[in-house]
This record gives sequence, structure tokens and C-alpha cells, in this order.
Amino acid sequence: MKCYELQGPDGIDGLALVDKPVPEPGDGQVLVRLRAATLNYRDLLTVKGGYGSRQKFPLVPASDGAGVIERVGPNVREFAAGDRVIGSFFESWIAGEPSEAKMRSALGGAVDGVLSEYRIFPKHALVRTPKHLSDIEAAALPCAGLTAWSATVKLGSVKPGQTVLTQGTGGVSLFALQFAKMCGARVIATSSSDAKIERLKQLGADFTLNYRATPDWGKKAREWSGHGVDLVVEVGGVGTLNESIRATRIGGTIAFIGVLAGPPPSDLRLPLMVMQQQRLQGVTVGSVEDLQAMVDAIAACRMKPVIDKIFPFDQAKQAFAHMESGAHFGKVAIEID
Amino acid sequence: MKCYELQGPDGIDGLALVDKPVPEPGDGQVLVRLRAATLNYRDLLTVKGGYGSRQKFPLVPASDGAGVIERVGPNVREFAAGDRVIGSFFESWIAGEPSEAKMRSALGGAVDGVLSEYRIFPKHALVRTPKHLSDIEAAALPCAGLTAWSATVKLGSVKPGQTVLTQGTGGVSLFALQFAKMCGARVIATSSSDAKIERLKQLGADFTLNYRATPDWGKKAREWSGHGVDLVVEVGGVGTLNESIRATRIGGTIAFIGVLAGPPPSDLRLPLMVMQQQRLQGVTVGSVEDLQAMVDAIAACRMKPVIDKIFPFDQAKQAFAHMESGAHFGKVAIEID
Amino acid sequence: MKCYELQGPDGIDGLALVDKPVPEPGDGQVLVRLRAATLNYRDLLTVKGGYGSRQKFPLVPASDGAGVIERVGPNVREFAAGDRVIGSFFESWIAGEPSEAKMRSALGGAVDGVLSEYRIFPKHALVRTPKHLSDIEAAALPCAGLTAWSATVKLGSVKPGQTVLTQGTGGVSLFALQFAKMCGARVIATSSSDAKIERLKQLGADFTLNYRATPDWGKKAREWSGHGVDLVVEVGGVGTLNESIRATRIGGTIAFIGVLAGPPPSDLRLPLMVMQQQRLQGVTVGSVEDLQAMVDAIAACRMKPVIDKIFPFDQAKQAFAHMESGAHFGKVAIEID
Amino acid sequence: MKCYELQGPDGIDGLALVDKPVPEPGDGQVLVRLRAATLNYRDLLTVKGGYGSRQKFPLVPASDGAGVIERVGPNVREFAAGDRVIGSFFESWIAGEPSEAKMRSALGGAVDGVLSEYRIFPKHALVRTPKHLSDIEAAALPCAGLTAWSATVKLGSVKPGQTVLTQGTGGVSLFALQFAKMCGARVIATSSSDAKIERLKQLGADFTLNYRATPDWGKKAREWSGHGVDLVVEVGGVGTLNESIRATRIGGTIAFIGVLAGPPPSDLRLPLMVMQQQRLQGVTVGSVEDLQAMVDAIAACRMKPVIDKIFPFDQAKQAFAHMESGAHFGKVAIEID
Repeated sequence: MKCYELQGPDGIDGLALVDKPVPEPGDGQVLVRLRAATLNYRDLLTVKGGYGSRQKFPLVPASDGAGVIERVGPNVREFAAGDRVIGSFFESWIAGEPSEAKMRSALGGAVDGVLSEYRIFPKHALVRTPKHLSDIEAAALPCAGLTAWSATVKLGSVKPGQTVLTQGTGGVSLFALQFAKMCGARVIATSSSDAKIERLKQLGADFTLNYRATPDWGKKAREWSGHGVDLVVEVGGVGTLNESIRATRIGGTIAFIGVLAGPPPSDLRLPLMVMQQQRLQGVTVGSVEDLQAMVDAIAACRMKPVIDKIFPFDQAKQAFAHMESGAHFGKVAIEID
Repeated sequence: MKCYELQGPDGIDGLALVDKPVPEPGDGQVLVRLRAATLNYRDLLTVKGGYGSRQKFPLVPASDGAGVIERVGPNVREFAAGDRVIGSFFESWIAGEPSEAKMRSALGGAVDGVLSEYRIFPKHALVRTPKHLSDIEAAALPCAGLTAWSATVKLGSVKPGQTVLTQGTGGVSLFALQFAKMCGARVIATSSSDAKIERLKQLGADFTLNYRATPDWGKKAREWSGHGVDLVVEVGGVGTLNESIRATRIGGTIAFIGVLAGPPPSDLRLPLMVMQQQRLQGVTVGSVEDLQAMVDAIAACRMKPVIDKIFPFDQAKQAFAHMESGAHFGKVAIEID
Repeated sequence: MKCYELQGPDGIDGLALVDKPVPEPGDGQVLVRLRAATLNYRDLLTVKGGYGSRQKFPLVPASDGAGVIERVGPNVREFAAGDRVIGSFFESWIAGEPSEAKMRSALGGAVDGVLSEYRIFPKHALVRTPKHLSDIEAAALPCAGLTAWSATVKLGSVKPGQTVLTQGTGGVSLFALQFAKMCGARVIATSSSDAKIERLKQLGADFTLNYRATPDWGKKAREWSGHGVDLVVEVGGVGTLNESIRATRIGGTIAFIGVLAGPPPSDLRLPLMVMQQQRLQGVTVGSVEDLQAMVDAIAACRMKPVIDKIFPFDQAKQAFAHMESGAHFGKVAIEID
Repeated sequence: MKCYELQGPDGIDGLALVDKPVPEPGDGQVLVRLRAATLNYRDLLTVKGGYGSRQKFPLVPASDGAGVIERVGPNVREFAAGDRVIGSFFESWIAGEPSEAKMRSALGGAVDGVLSEYRIFPKHALVRTPKHLSDIEAAALPCAGLTAWSATVKLGSVKPGQTVLTQGTGGVSLFALQFAKMCGARVIATSSSDAKIERLKQLGADFTLNYRATPDWGKKAREWSGHGVDLVVEVGGVGTLNESIRATRIGGTIAFIGVLAGPPPSDLRLPLMVMQQQRLQGVTVGSVEDLQAMVDAIAACRMKPVIDKIFPFDQAKQAFAHMESGAHFGKVAIEID
């Protein structure tokens, strides 16, 4: 079988397509023939060495994959060959509260990822692909989808009639927009491009703001919403946090996702956040049970993830480069066939 | 002004249309010109003496009304003449947890109701009518609407992808169906009439069951849902409780609303409920803040309540009789003009 | 090794002490040398055939055991020989929400129990014994302890200053009393024996009621508490439910545990429960993560379970008979040595 | 009557003792003869102009007072002359979620405070003083007490066996220590003084750290706790936030209270907070219903607030100066007689 491997944090050019033997599923394990993967900003950061010296190498990159079960090992009654499945971002966070042990199992990080023709999964780290989704659409869900689900539904507890603000047109933000609408909420969506804003409206955004043209978008969002938004899905890091605090209502929540580092502004408005009894909630993907709940919702509402562009397996480097360009609207996918 | 009054539990014929002076709003009070009222099963029960000897008489019946502010008393800055408003079911349950003191203020029960051309409301017991609703539609909300909202959203915490079961075609059940769909849930709806079942489908029911034709509807609902439904909105009282327990998943909830009394079946499956770690949650309308949250959701989703039939003010008795017949699908309304 | 086995629902006399080979721990498994077990009412019911024809036989009875790790199988890094451990009631409910699959793994029910010198546990179904507890005290925790913890802390969310009512002097009730005090709550405890009431006071009960002498104990509890108790830990089944509803405040909870069957009273006050927006919450033990949380609390507060009487391993039948007599105050234990 | 008044942000010396007529209670109002007040850091900041140009002047300072009802106005049946009462920090936040309108009613801020012999309160903004507390002890509760209660019990949901970290020996921190112990938690308490650390131990601290001697106290707290603490009650502002993030477990909470402003450190670890799915929860006192719940808990557990020093009414300036010195351990009180 073929798979991509990184020997070190050598950037996109360090990605090497290598040959390996197809592994054999052991007790409670499942061999999956992967059909599709999608990329996250985190995968780009990993390739470029953004996670420092603790990163495991060699590494098969990318956390998000979907495919078809090739065969199952002993003591696997939950699945059978031919089943279409999605892999969980964390292999060991099955259910319940997060912990260090559970989170030391991220695909494409602590353990090998999915940029590979075959991969072994523990049976408890797979969920079935909904019928209405292609393998590429299914591969969009594990990281960006579940992060947005946790931000809006699980930790954000969005309710009908509330207002949610999303930022930009990356994977998490578009999923958050879709889940917020699924919950009966109103959505304020921002972008720096008027063309992308049109597409945000088509996805259901009730109010849009071009944050280039409107640097005080937080104030405008607060005004439009009435008393401030109930939830901001913050993906911009500390750089946009002040406007997010401004946008949020008293008692509201900012779901904080950004992997973007950088020093905070010297006028960071944490005291205002306190005075308004707001909550800044870190979000880190979720468990296999959370993934199942999200997939159930996607199936029930026949939701479709937004796929930006599909690259063939042998052009994975171009897919990473496209991710890096920032021009995408939705998920960047790689077809494995 | 004219209003209906009951001197005692004399049944529908005891309703008398009487003349009274228009009251004057005091400190913090608002005079509302009522334009519409709707009936609940509870109002019929009150008229017929179903609440026993503690019921206050004389009584202006009916809890659910909407209208236009005629004028405001001193210290009312929140509202002005001309504002369209909806009255809260409980006058003193403004926010927070319920209590005896807060709940001793139900309109058409502990205090006079809305079957009247004018009525004084404390300013904190009113919410604004959404623009897309007529006064009659607005008058559908305080009791049946808020009960369904509390059952599904507030206490039931329905999430996208969950399954909710509703029973029949009364006001609470139709609202519950609509709110469950608003939350992204799948809905199983039951009725004894195939004609009504068609209308339930039009309202969004994903799966329907004629409970006459299918007495073991609980089992069927469980099968269709996969592992059992997440929430049953139980309006049938103890008589239907066994099938509801059967329909519900392990760890699921039965929101219990029924005002219908009667002895429990001798084989009441409470032990099964325990073994399945289910929750039987009593639901009693909600607070003014809950009403506001629901009205915000109805406005955001442009939801319309289902009005069965509108009676003119001088035919209020016929409206009660229609309610009693059980033939309605949605709310029975009275126009006050 | 020696263990007790039941060939069928033959009652206490059917318990046979048999010889079996000591099993070998497989991948991810742990061999535990059991040192102590405790009995629950459920174990008595199982022995007597109370769970009907679906009960697995032959069966090693009893769910609650503690001991010392003899040796571990491959891929077990979490534990080592010599570690003192407690077994979980459910082997497969590791974390998260309950489900049919997770709950089809109860020791001494769906799978063999702990009345045995040795037993294999999956590594994820064990927690470490706190240092301040003996093996017998540790063996008191899995079923009765965790049920009481779930009723009070996890599902009951008892907060300082609230009032909790417990019934009688069985294992669950005494644990519930202790956990409620640990949470800063006031406790009302009932018993039919004045002698036992003295011991309830020593455990911290703030107010006691002899339910024989005071049949309307629900009313008295309501009065003493002010507005009604926040939580009743109901172990008496439907027979005592009416008084429990009476005792509970508006918006309060009745944690329903009773495995005691029997027809409900014809005047069952479920309508009153609805009007008071009360919650009847079925409780079924809990997950391994819940067990860990409870054990952490017991360690932090240096709580000691109440052990009624300790029987040697060869007198297990007498232990069951003592359980059946109802004379116990706290847990009936069996020492395995 | 006599009261203190500030004409502007003139510092402690600007406090003037003035004469005013005793006000008359109107509809739904209560006249309270204040017996005691306590100071918060916020009161010092107000006196010194720390809240900027929006601060109302002239102002009667201080939010926290307790006393005896002198007489009640019309329509007050809940209280009577002679009742001992505590005033709520917010006059208009009665129950439910916070909002701008509710929070624009803070005593000693938006409205006049309690450094006065008499004051009018709306009846809904008072709770009864527990019998076991003196008026001075009761006056310690409204701001610091309720802030700590919200941080630990209401928003922090501390459970038995969890670990809570408190910082220093100010009012909020000592209350947080006491409430955390009341909830059955373990407490790690920090201070810069070994003498104060002794007193923290007497209050129940399980583990103490001198943050001068141990600048990496966050790391030490994490180690002692096992996997990190469940809740940090952060009163130090952004300056201590990095160590607090370090101390906190994955999925844990930092209750953020600090009114201390100042620029954030350039290496603020918000990305680490995200990766650990932590929650930074702003806390702003609480509602009257929250105050009642806290007072119930204090009564049930017979808890006593820690009073540092009591100043007579005519030495209020010295009380402020003592507050400013930072030498206090617990609350600085003023007796009004």
C-alpha cells in the first residue's frame, strides 16, 4: 500500500509517498481501506513543525479520513467488511470528559494519520458513514465538523432564537454556521471578501459583515443582535478576541478554537469579559460518542459539508499548498483511490 | 367594557358576559386592550369545576391573551401605548426556578384571566408580539406554546439528531412538534385519525403512528428510532405512560404534562423506567423570561402557531363547546373586538 | 480456586461452592485475587429468580468486590501486581451516557460476579482502592455506593444548603445520607425503628422521622424543610411514592431506585408531580468514570462506608439469609480469604 | 440620619459624613436601619475614581450592608418591622440570567450604597439574616460572599472530591475556600505570607503554597492534585492567569473575578487553555435568588465569615485605608450604630 510520511518538520516538500505492507487487524481492530481525507490548518502546522520538538516522527499526517472496511479482526461484531466508516480524531477519547490519556491519541499527531491507502482502527474509534454522504463529504467531519459541533451544540448549547457569530470561511466556521442554523439560531457571519459573503448568505447566514470594511464588527454585531450575541465561535485567536468580547451579550459564551498563536493585544478586554459574566470556552474536537451524535444530526437533517476542492492522492502536496494559500471556502479534500 | 365571568363551577352555560368599568393602570402597571384569546383544556376544566373547592370565584376565565397597550401607569418606561403585547401565563413567575409564591398567579385560575376587553398587567408580565404574528396567533402562545417549549427546549434540551415523540393534535403537541423540528430533531407523531396524520406530516412529522390501529405504538416508535426516542411529550396521563416508557431510550426523558387524572394501570412500568435510567419530568408552563426566549425563537424562525378555528367574542361558549368536542387540530381562538 | 455458583433460581440453598481453575488474564485484562464482597438486595432477588427467565445460569453471584491484583495480562500498563482495586458494577459502561450495550454487562447478572477467589477484569473496569479503606469497606462501594452517588451528586446535583430525604437503613440510603452531608446538605432520614434512628443521627441526619409512628412523614418533612425537600432518594418503590411527592418542593427531584415491584396505589399522585414541576429520575448505578469520581470523593473526605456484619466466605448463605431478614444497618459483607 | 457621601472621585479623603432626612418607604419598599457594612476592593476603586467618568456622583459608597427593618411600605407582606435583613448587591437582578438592565443596579455604584444609617430597599432585594450570624457577619455576604458562591457552587459546580485552588486572603478567596470545603472538595490555598498560610490551614486548606517562595505554584498545584485542579478561583487578574492555566486540569475551569486591570503578559497561554479545553468563566456577584441559596447554605452549615477588623461608623475612612494597605485577612467591617 501507499502512504504519505513525514520524516521531520520539513514543510510540504518533506511529504514523501512511500510503500508499506498492508497491516493486519488484531483483536478488536478493523482494517479500513481509506477513500478520502480532508485537511485542517493543524495538519499544515504539523508539516511545518509548528508543534515543536515533541512531535512524533516519522508521521503519517492528517486526522480526517473515511473509507470502507476491508476486514475485521477477532472480537469485532459491531462492524463487517464493506461497511462505510469515518475515523475519530482521537482514537482513545471514546466518551465522557477529556483527559490527558484520552487526548494523547490524535491522528496525524500522537499517532499516525489517514493519508494512507489502508489504516488499522480500534473498533471503538469508528462511526458509520450516513447514507446521504459521499466518502469525501464524510472525511470532512472528524476534526473541523466535530470542533464546530462541540462549540455550538455540546459546549455552546445553542437554542432556537439565539444568535451565533462565525468568523471567516474555514472548515470550522462553515460547520458552525450550519449547526447553528440546524439549532434554530440566527447567524451573523463575517468574511473579508464580498464574494464569500454571498456564499455565506446561501448557507443561511442571516446577517453578514465584511470585517475589512467594518473593523468594529463586534459593535455592529451587538447592535444587530439586540443585546449581544449568545455565542461567538472564535477562530481568529487573541487578535480578534476584543471584538468578540464586544459582540457577546452579558452572560454569553465565546467558544475559543484558534490554534493561531501570537502575543495578546496590550488592551485585551478580559476585565470587560468578567464584568459581563462571559465565558471563554476552549474547544478541542470531541469524543467518539460526540462524533456519533453529530453524525446522527447530520443524517437526520441531511446536512452536506462544504467541500472546497478535491485533489487526487498523488497531488496531496498541492492540497496542502492550497490550504496554505487561504483561498478556500470549506474543506480541502484528497481522494484516495 | 365587557368581559366573561363565572360565578361558580357551573359549566359552559355558567359563562356570563358582564359589564365592568375599564380599570386604571397603577404604578408599574399597563392597561391592555385585548384583541384575542385562545383556550386550553385547563380552561374547560376550570369552567366545569375540575379544580375543586379552592378555585377562586367569581373568575374571568382563560389564561392566554394578546392585544395592544391602551395606556401605561407611572414608572413604566419599557412599554408605550400602541405596543402589541402577549400576557404571561403566570403573573409572578418572572424568572428563575418555580416556587409556590410565583405559581400562585396563574391567569384564569388564581387571578382573573383574559376573556375581557381590557385587563391590567404588571409591566414585567408582558412580552412584545413578534411582527409576523397576528394577535390571534400571539394569543396561542402563553400556555400551550410555553408548555411545549419548556418540555422540548428548556427541560428536554432537545438537540439536533435526537428523536421526539408527540401525542395527538392538541395545542401542546403541535407546538412540541414544531419546536422539536426547530431544534433539528426527528419527530414521531401519533394520532387516532388518518386525516389528522396527514396534517402532522405537513407540519414536519418524520414518522407517524395511528395509535388506534397500532396499540403497541411505543414498541414501533422504539424500533423506528433505533435505540428508543430521546424525549416523549406525554399529554395522555398515566393511561399512556406505559407505552411512552417503552418508546423511550435508556437515559431518555418523558416530559409529563397531562392534566388528565385517573387511576394508574396496575402494571405501571415504573421499575422499567428505573432500570432504563429514564426521567419523568413534570412540566408546568414557564416564566416570563422563558416566554421571551420562546417568542425570540418563534420570531427568528418565523414559526406560525396552528389555529384551528376562530370564534367571535360573543360566541365564547361555542368556542368552549368546540374545545370539549375534541375535534380540534391546534388552538381554538376567540377574537375580541 | 473456589467460587459460588448458582445453577438456576433455586434460592439461597441453591448456592454451591465449587472448584474451578484460576483463569489467565488475556490482552488488556487483569487477574484479581478477591478479598471481600458485599451483598445488595438485587443479589438476593437474583438468587431467588426475581429477574425471570432471561437470567444467565450458571452464574457466579454478587456484583460488589474488592481485592488485590495477582497479575496483569499483555498491554496493561495502568496496573501492576499488588495494587488494591475495586471492580465496577458494569464491566462495559466505562464513561458517558448509559446504553443497552453498556448496561448488558452487570456483574452477578449478565456476567459472572465476585463471589469467587479470583476473577478476570478488563483493565478499564477497575479503580484503585483508597488507602484509608479496608478491602471490605472498598467492596461496599460498586453498587449501593455508586447508586447513592448518582442519585445525590451526579443526577441529583445536591448543593450546600439543600435538603435531602433518605428512607430506611439499607446500603443505598446510608450512602445517600453520607454523600448528602458531604455536599453540605441537610438530611431528613426515616426509619421504622427508634434504635436505628439514633444511629442515623450519629451519621449526621439533621431531622429524623419514624415512618411507622408518622405515616404522613412526607407532610412533616415538607414542613420541617420550609418549602419542601430538594431531593428524595426513593428506595421504597411506588408504595411510598405518594408521600415522597408530598415531601418534595416545587421543582424538586425524586431519585427513584426501588427494585421493589408491586402495583401502584390507585391514587398515585402523578398529576400533583406535574403541577409541582417535579422530576422522577430513574437511577441505575453508574459508569467506571463515575465510580472513580466517587472514590476520589470518599478519599478526599475520608468517608467510611457503614458495614453491618462480616461473614466468612464459607458462610455466604448465612450472609444472604441475614440480608433477607431486613435487620441490617448498612452493608452485609463476605470476607474471601 | 447620617451617611457618607462622595461628591466625586476624590479618594478616601473625599468621603464626607452628611446629614439627610430619613426616607419614607413607598409601595413595595422597606426602610432598613443599617447596623453594619463591609468593604470590597471595588469600593476603594470607586472612591479613587477607578470606574471612570460614567460613575454617578454624589454617591453613598459601599454595597454590602445588613440591619433591621424599621418599617415597611404598602404592599409588603413578606417582611415586618424588626426583621433582620441583608441587602442584595444588585437591586434589580432578582433571578434568572444576568442582563444589562438587571446589572445597572449595583449598590455603591449605579445606585446609592449602604454607608448610611438608613436606606430604602425594594422588598425583593432583601433576604433574612441567618440566626447564627451577627449583623457584621451578615454584612460580609452580599458582594464577596456571593461572588465566591457563584464561582464555586453556581458556575463552578464544585463536587465532592474535586480540587479547588484559591489565591490569597481577601474576602472572595476566603469565602471560596470555605464554600469549596462545604462542597466536599480539597482546597489548595496560596498566600505570600507564612503567617497567613497558617490561618488558611485552620480554615481547612488541605495544601498551601507561598507564591513568593514558589513562583511556579501552578505546576506544584497541578502535581499535588494529580491531574490538575478542577477549579481555580482567579482573583489576581491577567498577571497570574498563566500559572492558573498551568494548575488547571484538562476540561477544568478558571473562575475569573479580578477587577485588577493591567496589560496581559506577552506569553499569555490562551492557546494552551484551548488545547486543554478549559473554561475561563467571568463571575459578577449574582442574583437575589442566588443570595438566598447561599444564605440557606451558610445557615445549614452554620458557616461564619472571616471578619478581619471592625471600625466604628465615624472611622470609615480608616477602614478604607486599612483595605488599601492589603494587610487584611478576610473582611474589613464598619459598625453603624
